[in-house]
Amino acid sequence: MTNTFEGVFAALTTPFHSDEVSPEFFKENIEQYNAFDLSGYVVGGSSGESVHLTDDECAGLIKTAVESAAPGKLIIAGTARQSTRLTVEFTNRAADLGARAALIVMPHYYKSLMTSEALKTHYLVIAEKSRIPVIIYHIPQNTGLQPKSELFVELSQHPNILGVKDSSGNLSAFAEIFPRMSSGSVYFLGAGSIIFPALMMGATGGILMLGSVAPGLCARLYKLFREGKWEEAARLQRSVVPLNQVVTKHAGIPAAKYALDLQGFHGGEPRLPLLPLDEAGRTRIREILRILGLID
Amino acid sequence: MTNTFEGVFAALTTPFHSDEVSPEFFKENIEQYNAFDLSGYVVGGSSGESVHLTDDECAGLIKTAVESAAPGKLIIAGTARQSTRLTVEFTNRAADLGARAALIVMPHYYKSLMTSEALKTHYLVIAEKSRIPVIIYHIPQNTGLQPKSELFVELSQHPNILGVKDSSGNLSAFAEIFPRMSSGSVYFLGAGSIIFPALMMGATGGILMLGSVAPGLCARLYKLFREGKWEEAARLQRSVVPLNQVVTKHAGIPAAKYALDLQGFHGGEPRLPLLPLDEAGRTRIREILRILGLID
Amino acid sequence: MTNTFEGVFAALTTPFHSDEVSPEFFKENIEQYNAFDLSGYVVGGSSGESVHLTDDECAGLIKTAVESAAPGKLIIAGTARQSTRLTVEFTNRAADLGARAALIVMPHYYKSLMTSEALKTHYLVIAEKSRIPVIIYHIPQNTGLQPKSELFVELSQHPNILGVKDSSGNLSAFAEIFPRMSSGSVYFLGAGSIIFPALMMGATGGILMLGSVAPGLCARLYKLFREGKWEEAARLQRSVVPLNQVVTKHAGIPAAKYALDLQGFHGGEPRLPLLPLDEAGRTRIREILRILGLID
Amino acid sequence: MTNTFEGVFAALTTPFHSDEVSPEFFKENIEQYNAFDLSGYVVGGSSGESVHLTDDECAGLIKTAVESAAPGKLIIAGTARQSTRLTVEFTNRAADLGARAALIVMPHYYKSLMTSEALKTHYLVIAEKSRIPVIIYHIPQNTGLQPKSELFVELSQHPNILGVKDSSGNLSAFAEIFPRMSSGSVYFLGAGSIIFPALMMGATGGILMLGSVAPGLCARLYKLFREGKWEEAARLQRSVVPLNQVVTKHAGIPAAKYALDLQGFHGGEPRLPLLPLDEAGRTRIREILRILGLID
Repeated sequence: MTNTFEGVFAALTTPFHSDEVSPEFFKENIEQYNAFDLSGYVVGGSSGESVHLTDDECAGLIKTAVESAAPGKLIIAGTARQSTRLTVEFTNRAADLGARAALIVMPHYYKSLMTSEALKTHYLVIAEKSRIPVIIYHIPQNTGLQPKSELFVELSQHPNILGVKDSSGNLSAFAEIFPRMSSGSVYFLGAGSIIFPALMMGATGGILMLGSVAPGLCARLYKLFREGKWEEAARLQRSVVPLNQVVTKHAGIPAAKYALDLQGFHGGEPRLPLLPLDEAGRTRIREILRILGLID
Repeated sequence: MTNTFEGVFAALTTPFHSDEVSPEFFKENIEQYNAFDLSGYVVGGSSGESVHLTDDECAGLIKTAVESAAPGKLIIAGTARQSTRLTVEFTNRAADLGARAALIVMPHYYKSLMTSEALKTHYLVIAEKSRIPVIIYHIPQNTGLQPKSELFVELSQHPNILGVKDSSGNLSAFAEIFPRMSSGSVYFLGAGSIIFPALMMGATGGILMLGSVAPGLCARLYKLFREGKWEEAARLQRSVVPLNQVVTKHAGIPAAKYALDLQGFHGGEPRLPLLPLDEAGRTRIREILRILGLID
Repeated sequence: MTNTFEGVFAALTTPFHSDEVSPEFFKENIEQYNAFDLSGYVVGGSSGESVHLTDDECAGLIKTAVESAAPGKLIIAGTARQSTRLTVEFTNRAADLGARAALIVMPHYYKSLMTSEALKTHYLVIAEKSRIPVIIYHIPQNTGLQPKSELFVELSQHPNILGVKDSSGNLSAFAEIFPRMSSGSVYFLGAGSIIFPALMMGATGGILMLGSVAPGLCARLYKLFREGKWEEAARLQRSVVPLNQVVTKHAGIPAAKYALDLQGFHGGEPRLPLLPLDEAGRTRIREILRILGLID
Repeated sequence: MTNTFEGVFAALTTPFHSDEVSPEFFKENIEQYNAFDLSGYVVGGSSGESVHLTDDECAGLIKTAVESAAPGKLIIAGTARQSTRLTVEFTNRAADLGARAALIVMPHYYKSLMTSEALKTHYLVIAEKSRIPVIIYHIPQNTGLQPKSELFVELSQHPNILGVKDSSGNLSAFAEIFPRMSSGSVYFLGAGSIIFPALMMGATGGILMLGSVAPGLCARLYKLFREGKWEEAARLQRSVVPLNQVVTKHAGIPAAKYALDLQGFHGGEPRLPLLPLDEAGRTRIREILRILGLID
């Protein structure tokens, strides 16, 4: 699990200090993550509130991550903008800073015009011009887009398109799409509740918010899978579902950040319009982390 | 795998002859299915075009299934109507005919009024009055309803509610809901593309259109799972995905029926407004069945 | 406004007595409605809980309506079933009972297969076989279907397809579709909040739950429109919006029925799974009816 | 119609030259628009591809518009970013450049967390900190958000929130929300197909892509409405529906830009991922403009 695009990547959150990005906190977080057997880190993804950051803030985080990551940990940068042009520009800026791949969510503002043809053109232009490989990021709950399977299959033919990250939680879609993609393609799940079943079905790995919130458990889950200890893996998988649900679905980034605070990372508060976690949510997070043995 | 609600159930199609229900064809189909190691049959579900049948037609099919099924094969009847009252009536009619459980899709016409409270009342009244156990059928792609997890969890406490059939394809939902349901509850998947991963995660079984179209493969998949031959099971699971997708998602019942025709069952044409499969669809089905070795 | 398909039709509710359909109450309601200047009545539509009724119950209501309606009031029957075949059968049963047109909602259970081609075939077969004219009923909030404009345009060419009832509330859709339909086609709005603007734009009339709940105001609104008293019509239109919203959107049929009870009609309770109106809803209805001067 | 927020505003497109923003073309367009009786211009809205522009590009356009607009024409700037913080910053930058109001679309990336509470906090913080009045921009087809009416009603109480622009096309929503908003609030429609009916119902005006593509017709429509010539207005309204549909719904910005090219404005091509209009679309636009007498 060194230096290749497989296994579990932690989708990092962005720590703020008085609403300003804190590169120090970010660096300290990564130094803590380095102790875990993770394949690398995603910077500037959905988990990192990239849509709340300026380009300079985001570039600063990528630079910090590249410098702070332990040897062999790969940095993947979220680099999507709504236009093809700005996406290419920021992707190559990330490449220059040392990111090893670009995770690119679909443009979605002009939803009704985001046909398969438009999305195909978008990704092909980016793939041609990007100096690092491109991962197509599918997260329909945020984009509202459900392109046909063929789009993924066709795009996978391009040599600079590495594969897909799919956060839909729909394993049927994976099972339909992945076998038809170009050989050598990767398929990362973004849904921490089903990472083990997906691995069993042949997925390449996970790019997970859960990888930030419970890095040790995620690393162990992947190790159990690799060692063929599947019953044990299935048990561990089931045990992390409540945590995953609360940090991705019910309360999202604010909950993830609070869970980090409790475990000695720099979580902190999100930027508005994300609201800080309320007291009921905090209690729930503490319960869940205790059950998992992550806090006392 | 006898006489209990676990394993793979085939969700049967309804054979028509000149647009009339053919009990003979239905009987002959079941006699063929009896040769396979399936747990039982679902009659009058989505696969059976129950919404296209009169109550008498549907009751006739249940009766035929009860009489034709080999010993130990359980008959589950789809008995939902839009009103609580008519659902209770038809459920008890099915019970009198020998059905062992009722599979009940959510009422969905007045979508905006189908709150958790309304759905809860609906299922509780049915559970109280039904003489057979009730399975809650969740198929959001048809109903447009996405009730909160709590609904399933709460309803599972009722002694006459057996559990859930979930056709959403969303294994994350399963992973979140099932562990919180009453112990002894069942959770059947309706998505043939992910039945093995779901079983690994603790699902009870599958109620599958794929169980009708490829009964031997489904039975084998379940056997491999039970014997702990998970690598082999994962391979078999992956191989059936294209068939499952075409008969459930892309072309649906008309495709399933054509696949049955090719394998010596009585498939036939659906009732309108479902259109017969076009020539491209037929070619695709033949290709898929050949690859799977189901036809020459 | 006699004997033609224009103006305001009241979409009638179904009164129950101890959960049984009460033809007497229904008859008495119609006799009250006869005093208002409405074009006719819809029986067995969404407002009438037709999905909660048996065919015999629904046929009984059609018969009662035909017998009880004042001369010149047209009866439109909701006759849709999920299959083409059962829809044709019940449509002709309604025709035999004296219904003058059939209002037919789109089949929607197998949503992903309800392509424009399937829907077109469905309506054309019905139009061929029905002995009364057919009105296509578009209510996407209940069916989840949003067919392309072309479907309505093409179907309007059939001589036995009278036109469309559109309950989407989307007047842009109307403005796009209606001018392209066959001349002589009708376009009824099902959204009481915008009936006057729609009339101004050329709509034929309204088939309205609001026509049942506030028949006098609806008749007056149409009269003002016909007389060119548009400022006054606009004022009246605005005043009825809160009532319309509560009986169609927020609380639906249970609210409408309570509003009828307060005005001396037989409203009563809906059948489950529709829940009776709660106390807050009742208070709200009383307030609204008082403001409109419909109760003291 | 001078200097107040009412009547028709043209939602301007952004002209590119070799994919670079052309301030010269933009200036020349505005000088042409100045000849029409429009209330003002929106810069950096959905029509202007603001999501495809850098902040500096967008600021440049606002500056140009302020300098080029004829006296009395108000400039409204689209200033939304996904975070509250960046929205405030860009809004005040627009204020400094001379924009008279800010049109702010809802943040929508973290859809499931965009509760009424989060949206309320977002807009209230912006309203507090913005030096120009704020217009809440509701365009569910792009954002996927359908907040409850109460949100609009409550926010309208803030003295620095001017009102709403609603592009949903759903006039029922308008009819329900507007009467409950703070007196003095504005309600602009973004749907050119229903601007006249909306005006009749009390809407304040329109912020319309159609105002860019057919400025003369839109100005005339508003004038007819103001003069009480409602039959004529209704006819004109109906006549522009096909053009409006093609430039907003079917082919969008690329179609609008081509329509501008044909009429002597600088339309040009959009930025990717928006694809240029294909030949069939071009033919359709020419036909429509000819029928309307906008080209020979």
